Formats: sequence, structure tokens, C-alpha cells
Amino acid sequence: MPEKIPLYEQLAQEFTQQIELGTFRPGERIPSVRKVSQQRELSITTVLQAYQLLEDRGMIEARPQSGYFVRPPVTQATPEPETSTPAIDPKHVSIADLALRILRDTLNPNLVQFGAAIPDPDLLPTDRLNRILASIARKGDFPQNVCGLPEGHEELRVQVAQRAFSSGCTLTPEDIIITSGCMEALNLSLRAVCQPGDLVAIESPTYFGILHLLQSQGLRALEIPTHHRTGISLEALRFALEHHPVKACLVLTNFNNPLGSCMPDEAKQEMVEMLAERDIPLIEDDINGELHFQGQRPRVAKAYDRTGNVLLCDSFSKDISPSLRVGWVAPGRYKKQIEHLKMATNVGTATLPQLALARFIASGGYDHHLRRIRRAYAEKVGSMSAAVLRSFPDGTRVTSPCGGFVLWVQLPETVDSLVLYRLALKAGITLAPGYIFSPSSKYHNFVRLNAAYYCSETERALARLGQIVSRLA
Amino acid sequence: MPEKIPLYEQLAQEFTQQIELGTFRPGERIPSVRKVSQQRELSITTVLQAYQLLEDRGMIEARPQSGYFVRPPVTQATPEPETSTPAIDPKHVSIADLALRILRDTLNPNLVQFGAAIPDPDLLPTDRLNRILASIARKGDFPQNVCGLPEGHEELRVQVAQRAFSSGCTLTPEDIIITSGCMEALNLSLRAVCQPGDLVAIESPTYFGILHLLQSQGLRALEIPTHHRTGISLEALRFALEHHPVKACLVLTNFNNPLGSCMPDEAKQEMVEMLAERDIPLIEDDINGELHFQGQRPRVAKAYDRTGNVLLCDSFSKDISPSLRVGWVAPGRYKKQIEHLKMATNVGTATLPQLALARFIASGGYDHHLRRIRRAYAEKVGSMSAAVLRSFPDGTRVTSPCGGFVLWVQLPETVDSLVLYRLALKAGITLAPGYIFSPSSKYHNFVRLNAAYYCSETERALARLGQIVSRLA
Repeated sequence: MPEKIPLYEQLAQEFTQQIELGTFRPGERIPSVRKVSQQRELSITTVLQAYQLLEDRGMIEARPQSGYFVRPPVTQATPEPETSTPAIDPKHVSIADLALRILRDTLNPNLVQFGAAIPDPDLLPTDRLNRILASIARKGDFPQNVCGLPEGHEELRVQVAQRAFSSGCTLTPEDIIITSGCMEALNLSLRAVCQPGDLVAIESPTYFGILHLLQSQGLRALEIPTHHRTGISLEALRFALEHHPVKACLVLTNFNNPLGSCMPDEAKQEMVEMLAERDIPLIEDDINGELHFQGQRPRVAKAYDRTGNVLLCDSFSKDISPSLRVGWVAPGRYKKQIEHLKMATNVGTATLPQLALARFIASGGYDHHLRRIRRAYAEKVGSMSAAVLRSFPDGTRVTSPCGGFVLWVQLPETVDSLVLYRLALKAGITLAPGYIFSPSSKYHNFVRLNAAYYCSETERALARLGQIVSRLA
Repeated sequence: MPEKIPLYEQLAQEFTQQIELGTFRPGERIPSVRKVSQQRELSITTVLQAYQLLEDRGMIEARPQSGYFVRPPVTQATPEPETSTPAIDPKHVSIADLALRILRDTLNPNLVQFGAAIPDPDLLPTDRLNRILASIARKGDFPQNVCGLPEGHEELRVQVAQRAFSSGCTLTPEDIIITSGCMEALNLSLRAVCQPGDLVAIESPTYFGILHLLQSQGLRALEIPTHHRTGISLEALRFALEHHPVKACLVLTNFNNPLGSCMPDEAKQEMVEMLAERDIPLIEDDINGELHFQGQRPRVAKAYDRTGNVLLCDSFSKDISPSLRVGWVAPGRYKKQIEHLKMATNVGTATLPQLALARFIASGGYDHHLRRIRRAYAEKVGSMSAAVLRSFPDGTRVTSPCGGFVLWVQLPETVDSLVLYRLALKAGITLAPGYIFSPSSKYHNFVRLNAAYYCSETERALARLGQIVSRLA
């Protein structure tokens, strides 16, 4: 078939497609006739014919001495119909697809961001961080021609080790491997200790990113009941370990997402010992540990690790910057495996973001910043929790966690959280439907709300959400 | 046992270890007595006793109104013995360990960098890039509170799509997923198309990073003979496909590392068709494609892809900056899988480096930069190749590639490249021993040399290397 179409027509079609799909946009120059002729081994005449055709169709215009440029579309002023939102069938919902949707929602400035657990931009030290980034870049303070090492930059590892003290850990810079965010730390940890097909004990409910991660590695999830205050049930975990071939255990010890639960210290110690006895590695996610509302920073389970059995994962994405993509893992006796896996994943994490974080922490003021945001999130979480009870129909239950910035809301049994997600989106509000917090779709009538975006401007959106829920109840 | 040691002594030991291992370094403050007391639930007296002990031992000193600080080590002036370099046993060499050593060598400014394939720092546009990075950071030109999407920033995807034209491809921004370097692009591609245990056809020799990558995913390598000028043997590949259950094929089509081979266009087309017929995905690594020495930029195999069967992987690490860790993959019909895997790997790549690259390319001058470095690398590769023939013993053979910046050197049969690596290191020169370019240790008497660091200052080092080889021959 394609042979029948003249070459110049083929070329014109190719450029039409590229213009329509945004490779070349209005006002941009397309490659010169000479370049196209050389690259595609076509005669100058053929390319000129193609460009003439594109001109005739109003796609491009020639500018003397400059070349050919994409013209603005003629139909620019016509209001296009809105992109349809196809109905989501809960029975065929894929956690990855929904997670991706919720992630995409974060880039839409017209939505009220109750969906993804993104921090309030006003509660990040963005100006100071940007000044540090600019200063490092201006000075060219590091070698640009090497890609860095799998374990990451020493300056940052020193800062991480020093701060680990406050979570009850004794870590040295050698104990730490820098990653591109906490997700990468979890990814490498699971790959270090599991093989595809293995069974991993997780909290129920748990962060959907973890469920997607397990799925992506061909791992099976064993859901352990988890209390919204005290965290994973040790009785259930012990029973599970006795009856199932569990290969690893992945727990958000402090302020689980979505529950906000925080394990008591004794429970952490008991869990670490229970797993060490059976030689089952514990992957600990402490991403919310710094965001406690009262008293001391809660300890990590890693503080009780005597055998190198705990892989502690963390990042700076909740309190300094998600966009820098810098996290870390203290992998205990799995260090060598993690180092090798990191090298095979992306060699090492970009140097500039690591240095900026190290200098931000070293220059002081991090603790002051943390005190400020803890107060702010405590306030937001408290008032949003109260507002949910006020605005949502009878039978609604909601957590009031002591850290982090998400709420877990149980709606009346009849409310389907995916239907609610769709209706809320139409009303300009995003939320995280309960389905995606369990591999067995346990939480159909639950939603997770991001309290970081709760403020006087979004109070009304929450009230509106309450009305939508009431209609469904 | 530990119960017998008094608590303050235990605490003192813990701090001693942290000071010795660099968590707290000379001149730095250790946590306050009050903080330690709260965090560890110890009495103020116990902590004070521990700190007194550390003071008595000369580890820390009290400064009035400021706290406790680490003292410089007393033995500072004693010259320590050099770290020993244990003999490497070729029979037990692990590619990962050796690769990591060679990577670490890059950070040692006292070594002549003939080992890792790192670019010449003077041939990177570092100043301009740093100015762009600083300007974006200063302006805070992007939201810091979201982590970005798995597919990467649109600004960069548009630039990549536009540039793909010169390699013979028709790509739109939607066809591209940004990764943290080319290694990550390869990693995600392999995971998208293979399961552990699968067989992957690769060139022999090939880049050791790829062998390590296969190993890390539990994949088996099938080595296909590869010519130092024309690349992978299609006859051998066809035979292999007919006799082995090959699940994917991974080829460095343009300027293979270490060979420098470049497949002719017809061979690329034939390979793409051969694999498409059998529905075997081709993972194409084009990281050196822009570094051709003459004429047009060579096409990529992806240019002949009609079925979406080719996953084209690339990065900006050879010509703009390795330290930014930004690459991309055009995954054809595997886009959705790659997107999901990227999300499970690290959600997305850091935004700032992506934006800096996009603006560097969009602002023009990239082609000018490329012309300059192509000339420089052509010159370096040519003169280093000639110098190897001059300085190395009879029987030495060396490539003279038309692109990239590495040389593949065949030494007399009696020379063991690992012994040479060790001796060269003692003489302050790093190189890449042949062993690590094949999973079957085929190339014991080969080495790869990085010509990017060949210049008048390193001429003598090469001559010295020639003498060492002569002694071993």
C-alpha cells in the first residue's frame, strides 16, 4: 500500500502527524530542505514538493532566509469539547492505572488536591533550597563529567547518618545508600530480598505505590490487619508467619499511609525480634517519621535491629522537596546487594540534588523548618478531620492521626469510592479511592484525603464533597 | 553480654564508633545531653558520664554555651599504611565488583582516566549548563511540591522528539519516556520484555554495565560475534534465533562500547525485520550515536521499526552531562509497561535536570557543541590509537573507530588484563580489563582504553602503560 503514495505525499503526511502530535509546535522551525534530503536520502525536489503541499494545506509557512515554520492552527478559536472521562469499572480497576491518574491530577491546577499525598507548597523550604541549588550550579561545585557512585555523595550520607540519631539509630555514612526517592529505596530493597513469586507481608490498608511496586516485581501480597492507631497487628503477623512462606515484611512503622497509625516502641521491638528469629527481612518505610505532631520524633524499628535484618527506607519528599527525587536506604546486611542493584538501575542518583539537600541540612534551620510544618500539618489534619465529621453523612468515620498529613475516611457502606472519585473530579476535587489501598479491593467505601491542601480556600470544596457523599449514601 | 557493660560505657562506645566511621567529624557538634537523654530514655547523669568518658579519652571536648564537639584525632600526623590492593583472582572475578572499582577510580583525581568511558570535562558544556540550572533554580520555574510524572517533563520530550529526526526517526513527545540515564532506560526495557531466566542475545564484547544489568535481573546472556567495524553478525544472530529461545536482543548499533563498531543502515534494517518476524523485541542502545566523526549522524535501527518492536534507549551522559542522570527510551508498543515500571522504580526523574537539558537544547548551540566535540574526539581517538601501536609490544592490535571515544586493544596472548589492571593502577593509570566485557571471560588479553582523556599531558602515561604491557608480554 504505502508504495502507491508518492514519496513527497508520504513525507508531508509524516510532518503533518508530527505537527499534530506536538513534536513541532506553532512558531517552531521544521528541519531544512537540505537536512531532510540528506537524512532521508530523498531528492531536494521531493522534499520541496512535500513542503509545498504542507504550505498549501496551511500547516507551515516559508520565511525568507530562515526556513519553514509551523503555522498556528486555523481552528484555534473554536472551543473544543472537553475530554470525556470514561466510567471506571471497579471490577477491572488496575491499581497502576488509577495511581497514574491520581498522579496526573497533581499537575492540574484547577483541581482541589485532596487526592495524592503531596505536601503543601507553602510548607516546603523552596526559596532557600532554590538559592542553594543556584549557588552550587553557579559555582560548578562538583565534577559534571562523572556520574557519581551507587552509594551516593558522601556529604549527604554524613547528614543522613547524623540525623538518624534522633530516630534512635546508630548509623554511619557507610551504612547508607542514596536513592532517587523513597520508592526507589523500597524497589531496591524488595529486589534485594525477594524473587518473583515470593510472598510479602504488608499492612492493610497500605500505600498504593507499594502495591503497584509488588505487582511490578511479580511479588504476592499478604495483607495483615492494621489498627489505625497502633499499626500492624503483631498477633496476626505472627500467625501469618507461622502459616505462610513469607519472604519479607514491608511496614510503614510511623504514620502509615493511609491510616496514620504509629507503632508503639515496644511493638516495633517485638516485630524486629519476631522477624529476626525467623530470618525474614523487614523493609521499613519511615517517610512520614519526621512529621509527628507532639513530643519526640518516634523511633524507627531499625533502632532495635541487632542483626542487620532491617532495611530502613526514607526520603526528603514530604518535608523538603518531592521534585528533587532524593531518598535513601540503610540496608543493614543487604548493603552489597543494594549497591549492585542501584548500579544496575541507574548507576547513581544525580549529584546536584544530593548536594543541595546536604547543604540545606548542614546549614541548619532544618529542625526549625520541621517544627513549623509539624504545627501546620497538625492544625490542618485536626480541622479537616473535624470538618469531615461535620459535612459528611451519618455513619462516616475518620481517623485523627498524630503525624503525617492524610486522613482515612470510612463512608457509609453504600458509597462506592470509585463512583465518588468520578463525581468529585467533575466537581473539581481529586481524592484517592479506597480500592487502590488493597490488592483485594477491600476498601470500596473508604477514601484517603490529603489534608496538606486543607485551608480556608478549600473548606467549601470539602463541604461540597460531603454533599456528593450524602447523595450517594 | 551487653547487659554487663554499664549504660554510659555502651553509649560512649556507640559515639566512639560513629566518630571513627565519620558520622560526626572533627569540629562537628554531637547531639546535646538533653537530646540524647530524651531520645534514648537515659538519665542526664548517664549521658553526662558517657560524655565525660569520651572527653577523658580525647574524643570530644566541651565548649561553654555551645555543647560537645569532636576533637581532631591525636594520631593525625602518623602516616598510615596505604590500603592494600588484594590480588584479583580472574577465576572468581565478579563483573559487578570490578565495574564498581572502575567507577570508583573515576573519583580519584590522581589517576589517569583511561578506565571508565567518561567524557573529557573540557568537552562538556558545563558552564552554560550550570548557568541554565542556576537560572531555573533562582526563578523557581517549576512546582517543587509534586514529583513529576513517570513519562517525564514535556519540554524535554518535545526536544528529544525534534532531534530524533536526524537519526531517521519519526517520534512525537508521546512516544518518549524520560529516565534517570541510559542505564535506567535499558533496565526498564529489559524488565518490560523479559522474565528472570530468559535468554537475551547481546554483542560480544559488550559494555560491562549491560552484563551486570542482565545478571541483576536473573537474565541469561547469549553472546553473538560482533565485528569491530560492522557490528553484530547477522548470520550468527539468525542462527542463534533459530536454535535458542531468545526473548530479546540488546544491541549498541552505533559505536558499540568497547568495539566502536557501527552497523551499516542495511544491516540495521535487516536486523529489525528479522526480529520483527519472530516477534522478538530489539532493545537498541544509541548512547554514542551523536559522536560520529564524519558525515551524517548514523541512523538508528528504530528508524526501520514498523511494528513498535524496537525500544530505543539513549541519554545525554556522553555529550552534555553524566552527573545530571537524564536519559530516555522510545519504547514503541511497550510504552504502557515502561510507564508502569518507571512509576514503580522511582515515580519519575527529578524535574530540574530535565528542564535544564530541555532549555539547553532549545536555546540552540547544541549542534555547534556537537560539531566541536566530534572533531576533538576524532583527533583524540586517532592519536591514541596510533600511540598504542607505537608504544605497545608487537602483536598488539587496536581499533580505529569512526565514533565514540573508546579503543579496544588486543594484547599479546600472554598478557592477562587483570594483572595489567593491577600493575597499571600502581602506576597511577586506570583501564578496563577485557574480562568484564563478556560473561564467559572471553577477552582475558584485551583492554578498553578511554581516549577522552588522551592528550599531551597523558601521552607519557600511555607510553608507561606500553612498557608495563611489554614486560608482561
